[in-house]
Formats: sequence, structure tokens, C-alpha cells
Amino acid sequence: AERLRCTVVGFAGKLGKIARDDPRRVAHSLKVGLALTLVSVLYYTPLFNGWGETTIWAVITVVMVMEFTVGATLSKGLCRVLGTLAAGLVGVGAHLVADLCGGKGEAILLAVFLFIAASAATFSRFIPEVKERYDYAMAIFILTFSLVTVSSYRDDPEDLIELAHERITTILVGVAICLFTTFFVFPIWAGEDLHELAAGNLDSLAEFLEGMGSECFGENSSCENLEGKAFLQLYKSVLNSKAKEDSLITFAKWEPIHGKFRFRHPWNQYQKLGALCRQCASSMEALASFIITLKKAQYPEANPELYLKIRATCTVMSLDSAKALRELSLTVRTMTGPSPINNDVSKGTKASSDFRAELSEDVALLQVIHVAIVASLLSDIVIQIEGITESTNSLAR
Amino acid sequence: AERLRCTVVGFAGKLGKIARDDPRRVAHSLKVGLALTLVSVLYYTPLFNGWGETTIWAVITVVMVMEFTVGATLSKGLCRVLGTLAAGLVGVGAHLVADLCGGKGEAILLAVFLFIAASAATFSRFIPEVKERYDYAMAIFILTFSLVTVSSYRDDPEDLIELAHERITTILVGVAICLFTTFFVFPIWAGEDLHELAAGNLDSLAEFLEGMGSECFGENSSCENLEGKAFLQLYKSVLNSKAKEDSLITFAKWEPIHGKFRFRHPWNQYQKLGALCRQCASSMEALASFIITLKKAQYPEANPELYLKIRATCTVMSLDSAKALRELSLTVRTMTGPSPINNDVSKGTKASSDFRAELSEDVALLQVIHVAIVASLLSDIVIQIEGITESTNSLAR
Repeated sequence: AERLRCTVVGFAGKLGKIARDDPRRVAHSLKVGLALTLVSVLYYTPLFNGWGETTIWAVITVVMVMEFTVGATLSKGLCRVLGTLAAGLVGVGAHLVADLCGGKGEAILLAVFLFIAASAATFSRFIPEVKERYDYAMAIFILTFSLVTVSSYRDDPEDLIELAHERITTILVGVAICLFTTFFVFPIWAGEDLHELAAGNLDSLAEFLEGMGSECFGENSSCENLEGKAFLQLYKSVLNSKAKEDSLITFAKWEPIHGKFRFRHPWNQYQKLGALCRQCASSMEALASFIITLKKAQYPEANPELYLKIRATCTVMSLDSAKALRELSLTVRTMTGPSPINNDVSKGTKASSDFRAELSEDVALLQVIHVAIVASLLSDIVIQIEGITESTNSLAR
Repeated sequence: AERLRCTVVGFAGKLGKIARDDPRRVAHSLKVGLALTLVSVLYYTPLFNGWGETTIWAVITVVMVMEFTVGATLSKGLCRVLGTLAAGLVGVGAHLVADLCGGKGEAILLAVFLFIAASAATFSRFIPEVKERYDYAMAIFILTFSLVTVSSYRDDPEDLIELAHERITTILVGVAICLFTTFFVFPIWAGEDLHELAAGNLDSLAEFLEGMGSECFGENSSCENLEGKAFLQLYKSVLNSKAKEDSLITFAKWEPIHGKFRFRHPWNQYQKLGALCRQCASSMEALASFIITLKKAQYPEANPELYLKIRATCTVMSLDSAKALRELSLTVRTMTGPSPINNDVSKGTKASSDFRAELSEDVALLQVIHVAIVASLLSDIVIQIEGITESTNSLAR
């Protein structure tokens, strides 16, 4: 009993954490409940009494179309309507053609039509443009076309047209209820999530550099015992943000003007920004793994002057870049224009080019350093490949 | 007309390319057509004549459950059956409880039950474990529960139980047809795709290093004009492989023993291997961006002896690592054990540690080089942040 209690408390705690992490999840759950209850109440009203069984399409539509963000719900709703309309038209047409044959020929012709239409529509889902925006519409097209075909085995054309009409109307009702709920009850915008993701990525990069600046190059600090430090893991969330970002961009494009977002907001720009952030995170990963291996190979101080100078440069570069990133993330969050003179990055850039200039005074040293950097990065890759080898071997065992 | 012809030809070419890139896509499309035709033929047979409208559930099941890989179809089919069974039981139970109230109270109670069940099930889809494996089951649970509730407004309990029975039977028939088609007609295994993805990632990494070795460190070659080279882009596909890999692993876990795969194949190992490959690709990205910036800053040769020595080391490291990766990818592809002595990596490792040892003879130089590497990587990050700044500013305009 004690153990059961522990499990229940643990589970409740987990649920609580999920809810606290993003309270909109609770709102979304209640919205789905609300939309479904609305539909079921509509079913109860006299307006729909005459239709009987087809009203379940409104219920199915609500369950399938209600998504977390406004953009996703809108795109799925439109896909559902479009797919149903197209399939209804094609299906009725196919039925009329097949009707000319009559009897057994009709059934065989309909089966052939079904095979061709389903195969073609399934194949079209592999076209990238279709997959990105109309995948669900194609699924609904196949579904509706099959239903129309299968029903037309038995019913005469007039029944069929009425069936199609009822189906489209109930689906429109379902979509309307979904849109009403997502738009007017606590709307969750994909555009805002995308924004928050972009700003959060910039913050993570900034925090990494702040950690570098204070823990690694700061006064009285050395690059020791860094392996477990939290800031060295921050770039990982940035590296893995691509899938989420892509889907948010797709949905955000469907969303109408709202809040801070004008019509034709440059959504594709977020894709570019995300790619740059991920590239930066890659460099940070290389830097972090270099610093961690560096720590293992200690050596005495030998050229303290140059060493301290470069360290100071590193401090300037990392802290100022971090400051610039923080400012950028604020710019993204508040959607204000860029700050008039972004002199933080220029300070970091200046430190970086000063460093390069200073080194290049000693040409021989510069050349050796350059090629040594390449060799170091390569030998880092060699070490990583050893890890890959172990992993592969444990796979083949 | 000429223009139309061009568009049509272009579109046909595109379709042809999609089909040639992976001929299994054509097979999958035909399989969906086949499964749907099978269902519609079943609908035509006397066996199902008595059921009338509910047979459409078999059609819907086939459209929704047929997925590209065996694992995905199996998981969706099981989810659909489980979700329907659970919702059927809970729904009939709720109906019996509500029946005790009678009249208006029943309808209100059912609406309340619907609201609670839909909200709870939607919220449960945010639990990561549920999301990963049972997301579709939860959607079907909500759907079936709504249908049972909405239908029970009008029907008496016996009709309801018959409805539930018919629905479950037709769904089982639909799932059985899907499984028959995916298993016995040209099966497409997620496990094999996952395998191919892992081996392909290793090949991409190897090709990058081969490119480095021949174009950058080879005899008579310098690190010039590398910006447009194809091999410098190869790591990108590896970096973006995580989402595909995760879904393939989820599906592969559902697949039964087949071909080379035993029961309890260590699927999670692929996740670790993938993470290591992506980390390696990150280091390659840092290396590539460093080499590209390096090229822009030319300098005269000054310490040719050390320079050539390090270059030779780089050649050994990159070519031997590439060879090792090729061998690993072959190991993964053929699922043979590891080659008895993997002396390629050891050669690369030896070159890398020799290089470190040689450098460490000159302690002062080593120290400067180490800190210079950190500074160089950081100044690389600074340059990337400038790119991010531009991108953000064009966003805020």
C-alpha cells in the first residue's frame, strides 16, 4: 500500500510538472473537452435531428482537427474541407461514369477507380511540397473517396449526392467549432512559440559564452573540472531544435494577423536564424570538447605573457558576444528594431581581429598555429571516431 | 501550349525522380490501393451485408493505419484496437451510470463525462512516454468515447453494445487487412531503414574526411577554393538526422523478428551511435568553417619544416579515420562482427598522439597553441554571431 501510494504521488508529481512547465497544455486539454461537448450538444438540438448517423462526422472532425496551436488547427481544418470537397466531386464523377456500365461492370470499374485513386494520392504524399502542407488533405481525400465509392455500390446517385452534401456540411460544422474554440478561447499561436524558441536559442548560446567567460577565462579560474558543468550542455538543446522549428514555421504561415505579427511576417527568416544558431552551437560543441580534453593534459606555464594576453582576449570575446546575444534575444522577444549601435559585438569583433593581427606579426608562429588548430580539431575527430567504433562494435557484438 | 507541355514534362520528371530515389514508395502506394480495394471487396461479400453502415469503419481503419513501414503500421493498428477497446468499455460503463439518472439528468451527466474524459485523455498525450508510443491510441480513445456517448443519447443500451461490438469487429478486420498487406506484400522494415541511415551517416563522415585528406592535405593541393566543394557539406545531412532516427527507432521496436534482426535487437544502441555521429559532424562543421576562413587569410611560408610535418600528420589522421569509418559502415551494413584488429583507427590515433607528443616537447609553443586554438574557435563564434545579428536585424527591420 505504501508503495502504491508512492507510485501515485510520483505520477501526480509528474503530471503537475508537465502542467507547470507549460500551463497552456491544461488550457488545450480543456479546450478539446469543450469543443467535443459543444458538438455533442449540437447533436442534441433539433437542427441536426433529421440527419442521424452522419452527425458523427462532426465529432470525428473535432477530434482529428483540434491541435495545440491556432496555425495547426487552421491548416488541418482547411485540409479536411479541401480533401473532402475534392474527393466528393471526383467520387460522384467516378460513380456517374461507372453507372454507364451497369451491373457487375460497375462494381469492377469502381474497384479499379478506387485502386488507382488511392495509389496516386498516396504517391503524391511523397512530393515534398504536398507533404509539407497538404499531407492531411491527401489522407482525407483517400478516405472520402473510398467512402463514396464503397457506399455507391449500393445506393443510387441521388442518395449519394445527399450523403456527400451531409458529410460536407457536418465537417464544416466540426471545423467551425474547432476554429471558434481555438480562436476565441485562450488562443495558442505557433508564431509566438516560434518566437520564444528563437529567443530561447539565443539565450542558451549567450549563457554558454557567459559560462565560458566566467568559469574558464575569469580571474582565479582555470579550465579545470569543467566536464560536469551545466553551461557546457546548453548548446545541445539548440542543436536539436530543427524539427520543432520547422513544424512551427509551417503552422505559423497559416495564422492570421494577431498581436505583434503583421501580415506577411517574414517567417522563413526564422529558418535562416535557426540554421545560424545551430552552426554556432556546433562550434561551441567543438570548443567545449576541446576544452575538456585540454584539461586532461596539464602543462607548466612557460610563456606567461602571451598566454595571459590571449586569455584576456578570450574573456573579452566571450563576455561581449554573450552580451550581444542577450540583446538580440531581447530584440526578438520585444520585436523592437535593432538597438541603434550594437557596439557589443563590435567590441568582441575588435578583440578577435586584434588577436589575429597580433599573432600575424609573428608569421612563423601564425602558420604553425593555424595548421596546429586544424590538426587539433582533426585529432578531436579521431578521438570521437574511437567512440563511434566502440558503439558500432557493441551493436554487432 | 508549349509552356503547358514543359510544366507537365517537368512535373513528370519530378515524380519519376521521387520514384527512382526510393522505388519502395511506388510499392507502398500500390499496397495502399490494394488494401483499400480488398476492404471494398469484402464490403461487397455477403459476410458483411448485414452490418450496413458500420463497415465504413473498416475502410477508415485501412486509410488511417496503413503506414510506410511495418513497424509504423503495426503500432498504429495496435493503438487503434487498444484505444477502441478501452473507450468502448469506459463508454458503456459511463452510459450505464448515466442511465441511473434518467431523462435530462442523463444527457447532462453524459456531457460532463465527455468533457472530463476528453480533457484527461488530451492531457495524457503530453506525457512523453504516452506521446512516444500511444499518442494515436489516445486520439482513438477520445474519438470512440465521443461516438459512444453521442450515440447513447438516443439509443438504448443493447443497441449501444451491438454498436460497440460491430465497431470493434470492423476495426479488427481493417487492421487485419493492413497487417496482411504490409507483412506479405513487399514488406518495408523500419529496422532496415534505420540500419541504412546509420551506415549512411558513417559513410558521409568518411567521405568528408577523404575529401579533407585529398583536397586539403594531399600533395600539390592547398586549402584554397574550398568554399564550394561538395564534401564540405556532407556533415549537414548527419546533423539533421535526429528526427528521422528517433521515429525509425520507435517503429523498429514494434517489428517482429525478420531477416538479419533477432528478437530484442539493441535498438537503443542506434540512438547512442547516432548521437556520437552527430557530435563528430559538429566537430567537422567547426573544422570546415575554420578552414574556409583560413583560406581567406593567406600568409607566406615561414617554418616549412614544422608546417610540412603537421600537414603529413593531418593527412594520416584524416585518411585513416576515413578508412576506419568505411569499415564500420560495412560492419553495420553486413551485420558481421567487428574486424579482428581494427588497426586503421589505431594508426590514426597513433598519428594524433604522436602529434601531441611532438608538440609537447616545446612546452612554450604547446601552451600558446592550446590557448590560441581556444581563441580561434571563439573568434569563429564571434564571426558567426555577427551573422546571427544581421539575420535578427532583418527580422526586426
